Amino acid sequence: MVPHLTTALSGPLLDLERQILAATPRIEYWFRSRWHEHAAPFYTSVDLRNSGFKLAPVDTNLFPGGFNNLNPDFIPLAVQAAMVAVEKICPDAQKLLLVPENHTRNVFYLQNVARLASILRQTGLEVRIGSLIPDLDAPLRLDLGGGESLLLEPMVRNGRRVGLADYDPCAILLNNDLSGGVPELLRDIEQSLLPPLEAGWHVRRKSKHFAAYDRVAAEFSQLIDIDPWLINPYFASCSGIDFQARQGESCLEQQVADLLSRIRLKYQQYGIESPPFVIIKADAGTYGMGIMTVKDPAEVRDLNRKQRNKMAVVKEGLQVSDVIIQEGVYTFESINEAVAEPVVYMMDHFVIGGFYRVHTGRGVDENLNAPGMHFVPLAFETPCCTPNQFANPDSTPNRFYTYGVVARLAMLAASLELEDMRKGS
Amino acid sequence: MVPHLTTALSGPLLDLERQILAATPRIEYWFRSRWHEHAAPFYTSVDLRNSGFKLAPVDTNLFPGGFNNLNPDFIPLAVQAAMVAVEKICPDAQKLLLVPENHTRNVFYLQNVARLASILRQTGLEVRIGSLIPDLDAPLRLDLGGGESLLLEPMVRNGRRVGLADYDPCAILLNNDLSGGVPELLRDIEQSLLPPLEAGWHVRRKSKHFAAYDRVAAEFSQLIDIDPWLINPYFASCSGIDFQARQGESCLEQQVADLLSRIRLKYQQYGIESPPFVIIKADAGTYGMGIMTVKDPAEVRDLNRKQRNKMAVVKEGLQVSDVIIQEGVYTFESINEAVAEPVVYMMDHFVIGGFYRVHTGRGVDENLNAPGMHFVPLAFETPCCTPNQFANPDSTPNRFYTYGVVARLAMLAASLELEDMRKGS
Repeated sequence: MVPHLTTALSGPLLDLERQILAATPRIEYWFRSRWHEHAAPFYTSVDLRNSGFKLAPVDTNLFPGGFNNLNPDFIPLAVQAAMVAVEKICPDAQKLLLVPENHTRNVFYLQNVARLASILRQTGLEVRIGSLIPDLDAPLRLDLGGGESLLLEPMVRNGRRVGLADYDPCAILLNNDLSGGVPELLRDIEQSLLPPLEAGWHVRRKSKHFAAYDRVAAEFSQLIDIDPWLINPYFASCSGIDFQARQGESCLEQQVADLLSRIRLKYQQYGIESPPFVIIKADAGTYGMGIMTVKDPAEVRDLNRKQRNKMAVVKEGLQVSDVIIQEGVYTFESINEAVAEPVVYMMDHFVIGGFYRVHTGRGVDENLNAPGMHFVPLAFETPCCTPNQFANPDSTPNRFYTYGVVARLAMLAASLELEDMRKGS
Repeated sequence: MVPHLTTALSGPLLDLERQILAATPRIEYWFRSRWHEHAAPFYTSVDLRNSGFKLAPVDTNLFPGGFNNLNPDFIPLAVQAAMVAVEKICPDAQKLLLVPENHTRNVFYLQNVARLASILRQTGLEVRIGSLIPDLDAPLRLDLGGGESLLLEPMVRNGRRVGLADYDPCAILLNNDLSGGVPELLRDIEQSLLPPLEAGWHVRRKSKHFAAYDRVAAEFSQLIDIDPWLINPYFASCSGIDFQARQGESCLEQQVADLLSRIRLKYQQYGIESPPFVIIKADAGTYGMGIMTVKDPAEVRDLNRKQRNKMAVVKEGLQVSDVIIQEGVYTFESINEAVAEPVVYMMDHFVIGGFYRVHTGRGVDENLNAPGMHFVPLAFETPCCTPNQFANPDSTPNRFYTYGVVARLAMLAASLELEDMRKGS
């Protein structure tokens, strides 16, 4: 069951889907040549927003959780894609150590880890779970419900190798986004570490990602002759912010005003009557903390104490000093009156599926990945790799194909972003 | 619904499945290293026989038909695998020409061609169908039923390129096994031709394939410490046969006697009480023509005219002069009293699914791929890449995983066989 779009699709989005579908051979050829030059991340998830006139990525996660929300029918796709990833990145690997986040009480997250471990085991790897929980000195078995459990084991450093007491893996796969920095245990190890350390939120910046996405979206838009704005949200950034000390508010106010006026021009061009808005979020970090929706520059001038506190700190207590101001994209997808946001999952350069975050208590202009958010995952009913040239552009397989194309653009941007970081630019 | 094995599995096969399952990491690691050194064929299907004590490939097809018999749910797996194949073999391809057999009246075969074209289109290739039908001078639209049709177009040669009048493809994919030899049109062309010409039955020999399989099965059996006979049928070959002139019968008789006595020893070793048998078939060619089941060497001495005629000629009227004598493997899989034979499909080095040939009118010791054979295809209900370490070795996903492993061994043998042919050995 695909969330029903509340807007009739007769405007730009239907055109976009039509153009993408018609250009499939050119698009896939282009992607092949891009992946020839750039290495895809091991795995990626991309949050998309579909406003009925615009389809754009709003966040790209290089340590995706949520594998438990994927349609179980498509797990073989994930296994096959993981086989390709394993072949490329660590052809000699037989033993892998999966290192998750330290949330031992989030059963949904633990189910994600279990699902991921299961996919990797089905590629023929031996997989055990190594934990970064401080002071964990014995294996910890966590109950996942339904008779399943997950065994976290203390990690051990041995010279330049890391592993478990009786387990020396060839590769380490992080499902921990390193928001709190790189643990000593993982520094300067000789084994393959996936994704590389520079993908962690201790150094990664959303503004760098979206700068790379600008380049990708421009090239792609030229390829299929569309306005890049249709797939690319405007953004700006401010650094040196101190929300609690009210430093940097003028940069914020100015960038918000500038973005809103640029969006307003585009809305006029396309005859869109909704009010433009922007999202302000921490430039580093994830988990939807430190996020606000703004429709008027004045709003950032008058932040009250509660708002300032909310914006000042993200995951692991990190202080926010750099923010990204991103064009807000309305979510016009809904199911049973609840708003829905698609999340697309990839392993290596393959789209393996996705799901909708369906949230009843949130508006069409709000972030749906927020702390304490209780979304209902709704797995995509078809995978994203089966476009049907003979069906309507907005038919289910074709809509998901379009989602897969835009998500792959964001993944390509992440590849460029990581390359730039390795070059130290 | 998996065909129900009529024998209780407590003997060697259950052991084999258990050993394969336990060795999954070693097996997948070994396959990764093999595919690092050897290129997988573009696509392959392998006929397996499961006797309850032995699981072995009996035929390896490099121009597989029957894609229409696969479970539609797994088509995304085929699309993803085809993407890998296309990336590797013709990364620059946007336009592909698919060249099928000339059977315009076999609707099942045409549905296979349509399904294959659809899979390839979903990888983002432009695909048209070029026909080798002599004297075809205009496009021919063939009805597939259900409102579907297939457009065959006359092929055109232009210097060293081949294509359609208004279509210059980058690559040609043969779904025509070249039993009748290589058409002038396809000789010495500059485009990529897949599979290579040496995969055609005009030069390929089953005995070369099974000689390569001997090497693969020996290495694999050492890897997981099993008796290679459990996955490898004995075989021998005779050349210079003329069935109609009764030439070469003594070679046949001697090889049959020799094989039967070797099989008998193995049957004694494993306590198997069924009578051994061998299959005699043309060393070149497919489609199950020119095949007979023999349980006594005397049978090949006393061939009557009808049997001699049947053995003398295969597809496209080719005279049979070389035969392979292969250990017969009982089929002990059945469903509703009908015997069943699994066929496993692969694209690049990935198993993408399979189906059972279910045949009510044939015995457990007969070839199920025979002319005029009306089998009922029964798609595998799970793909072959999701072994479950926590389930029984003979549970559905694990049985199919085992099938996928043995089929991949046969595919690897085909890779070695093609390499040998290129080297001219």
